[in-house]
Amino acid sequence: MDLNPADARFAARLAELFPEDVLRPVAPRYLEEPRGRWHGQAGVLALPHDTTQVAQLVRAAGDARVGIVPYGGGTGLVGGQVKPDGPAPLLISLERMTRVRGIYPTENVMVAEAGAILADLQAAAAEAGRLFPLSLAAEGSARIGGNLSTNAGGLNVLRYGNARDLCLGLEAVLPNGEIWNGLSRLRKDNTGYDLRDLLIGAEGTLGIITAASLKLAPIPAALGTAIMVVPSPAAALELLSLAREQVAEGISAFELINGEGLRFLTEVLPDVRQPFDGTPEWSVLIEFGLSSGLNPQEQLEHLFARALERGVVRDGLIAQSQAQRHELWMLREQIPAANRLIGSVSSHDISIPISSIPEFIMRGREVVAGLGPFRINAFGHLGDGNLHYNVFPPKGRDRADFATMTPVVKRAVHDLVDEMDGSISAEHGIGRLKADDLQRYADPAKLSAMRAIKSALDPLGIMNPGAVLV
Amino acid sequence: MDLNPADARFAARLAELFPEDVLRPVAPRYLEEPRGRWHGQAGVLALPHDTTQVAQLVRAAGDARVGIVPYGGGTGLVGGQVKPDGPAPLLISLERMTRVRGIYPTENVMVAEAGAILADLQAAAAEAGRLFPLSLAAEGSARIGGNLSTNAGGLNVLRYGNARDLCLGLEAVLPNGEIWNGLSRLRKDNTGYDLRDLLIGAEGTLGIITAASLKLAPIPAALGTAIMVVPSPAAALELLSLAREQVAEGISAFELINGEGLRFLTEVLPDVRQPFDGTPEWSVLIEFGLSSGLNPQEQLEHLFARALERGVVRDGLIAQSQAQRHELWMLREQIPAANRLIGSVSSHDISIPISSIPEFIMRGREVVAGLGPFRINAFGHLGDGNLHYNVFPPKGRDRADFATMTPVVKRAVHDLVDEMDGSISAEHGIGRLKADDLQRYADPAKLSAMRAIKSALDPLGIMNPGAVLV
Repeated sequence: MDLNPADARFAARLAELFPEDVLRPVAPRYLEEPRGRWHGQAGVLALPHDTTQVAQLVRAAGDARVGIVPYGGGTGLVGGQVKPDGPAPLLISLERMTRVRGIYPTENVMVAEAGAILADLQAAAAEAGRLFPLSLAAEGSARIGGNLSTNAGGLNVLRYGNARDLCLGLEAVLPNGEIWNGLSRLRKDNTGYDLRDLLIGAEGTLGIITAASLKLAPIPAALGTAIMVVPSPAAALELLSLAREQVAEGISAFELINGEGLRFLTEVLPDVRQPFDGTPEWSVLIEFGLSSGLNPQEQLEHLFARALERGVVRDGLIAQSQAQRHELWMLREQIPAANRLIGSVSSHDISIPISSIPEFIMRGREVVAGLGPFRINAFGHLGDGNLHYNVFPPKGRDRADFATMTPVVKRAVHDLVDEMDGSISAEHGIGRLKADDLQRYADPAKLSAMRAIKSALDPLGIMNPGAVLV
Repeated sequence: MDLNPADARFAARLAELFPEDVLRPVAPRYLEEPRGRWHGQAGVLALPHDTTQVAQLVRAAGDARVGIVPYGGGTGLVGGQVKPDGPAPLLISLERMTRVRGIYPTENVMVAEAGAILADLQAAAAEAGRLFPLSLAAEGSARIGGNLSTNAGGLNVLRYGNARDLCLGLEAVLPNGEIWNGLSRLRKDNTGYDLRDLLIGAEGTLGIITAASLKLAPIPAALGTAIMVVPSPAAALELLSLAREQVAEGISAFELINGEGLRFLTEVLPDVRQPFDGTPEWSVLIEFGLSSGLNPQEQLEHLFARALERGVVRDGLIAQSQAQRHELWMLREQIPAANRLIGSVSSHDISIPISSIPEFIMRGREVVAGLGPFRINAFGHLGDGNLHYNVFPPKGRDRADFATMTPVVKRAVHDLVDEMDGSISAEHGIGRLKADDLQRYADPAKLSAMRAIKSALDPLGIMNPGAVLV
């Protein structure tokens, strides 16, 4: 069914239905996205105050056959938040719905509205003596509704899971404008189909999340952080196994760092202090967050000793102070910044079955070498099997020189990922960037089930048209 | 659309399509369920050897408009596995598909076919030096496909989650006979809608799970078990908070025991040894499973000392040997057996927001007292907010004397659960037993979304007709 644009007539209709302050001119920031690949169409922007208004907006859009783009913090990396073509959409930004509706420390639960900024939720949890574990680079501006809609990952997935794992229940407006009151604070509830996990990760194509019931965790009594140099990615996996044997869920982070990333830092961010004299080809940032009876430094020392004995590590540095911890994390966090300054030919957010990662890294190197004189920085959330696998021009050359190679490299990397039972989108989602890839790589039975569900819940096709399913 | 019975003509058609050994006479055990509430209709029984045969069976049933009841271990407690009325169904039992397809210790992943018995999977994981944490009373005969289809809970949910949380991916036959190859071993995969969690908990109404990729965990280095007497359910929650502060995820079990349950043991199972001289009204069985640096006995002693100081516990017993651990668990595990011997007027598998449990217990007592001279045994997975809330006749009387009260008690308890934002099915599912309750208590927007999804994926209505949605 063809959609109509969110034009002046539609705006006039909304102006009759809503208080004046709900509709706003579309400021440019709503039409941009972090990677600058797309520019959204303006259409109409609505800033509802509450869930009832969200529902009224969805019904009005349905009546007028106008597409809706739900808007969170605008930090998504796959273009789910901008509609660059076709009829202009109604943008519904949740930015006014930021309330924490309740915190239940005994239950380790927090109920918050979808427009709440992730960092604010972390702070609210901390104030109640609890941890809200979702943590990612954009947390200062990302909003929880968007985090849930994209099933965001980030730094703490290994221990606490991704956004889906941190959500107990949702309130949402479904495409027919009905409000689903599913804000359960229950840990166990087997009453019917799991709508929650269907809306989580649907990127706004099956409804608009308006509030969520979120899991909190105890704050670990003590944190310890180390960087350990490993001879290979396979050794890094052995180190992970040793660490798991030792502290089980106590591993809060296990991040692979590639020598290429450290060389990039030297090249473009020389002020970032590097912990080792040489540039180790592979190292791992490990964080332990332990309960009160255990000393994380001692546990990291013990791990290092055991790993050294087995030849699994070569060198290591255990942070002895909060400042040193911070410095080790800065190293890890500045790698994406260095990547951006170098400028990639193609970057990939992929996952691979964990035990296949060493093979993937080896085969990926061969595949990419066959395409040109590229540099590869493969790093990230090794404990989750999630690599940020980025391909760069050789030193001294510019990404612009290789612009035509971008689709070739991307295709070759994704083909290898697919062949090795991996995912072409580990944590960023599909959005518009990977909608074609989804068609290519997804299981056909899954795709047809997804289409059937989409048609059943959104027969008019108004919810985030062009995202995920094309 | 009306369904046809799985009659002799349909059996003859299947006999043409399948090798002789796939079709079997329907033995009585396939038509019974543990609580003896329903007797299933015979129809036709098929025992496929592989996923391809499951798909062929589903297509054949679709062509003939014959309903299908997927059959696992037959241990479900809500009648999802028996179709007592309407046209006789095709029973598809997965009992021949029991293979462990692979174990990946580095990944903490096991891939198994749906017919594998839960206890066998626990053993296979243990052999690989890992823990498969799903554990429940029926584990010796329940099959993993059924566990997933009902999103089974059990004893280890507090730490490791329910069946859904332990599943990374599925292979399933969808109602149109297509095979979905979703056996992902990935921890992170954001490529489209979450079909996995939609099929999990759908109780066979959206397809047949044929295999699953399951999460394993490290085996805790040491276990410690204690029973602590608490002055009230509220104190039990404080004890849980203290334990969490101390060992975080290290709490493997936190089970509330009610004095009524202990009196039942004295009454009908006097050989079960009880740890305290009197009969404490409330006590908690706590298990710590800790990593190598910590001694669970010491940690339990430390917890007990802290709790005693705050008046949160009154008495306690920490197991000093494997035999004592076993004895404490026997106590907990014999309570359901005692319940059965006493014979309940009405039993409920409910969950309540954890912090509301003390209030629920108090108000429940008032509500039930208003209905008759009943005894209440409220016990179970307190850490998950999941109570088994069972109502019994007074001592010396028989449940048969109160048969007419069963629906009244059930309705009153469920009304209170609903009023307090709880769930009328925490871990057993809906099946046929609670299909009417689902209509009464479920959110209307959720129910209509469920119906839309069911019609979209199973337009002929052949998958487990009469279960979940009526």
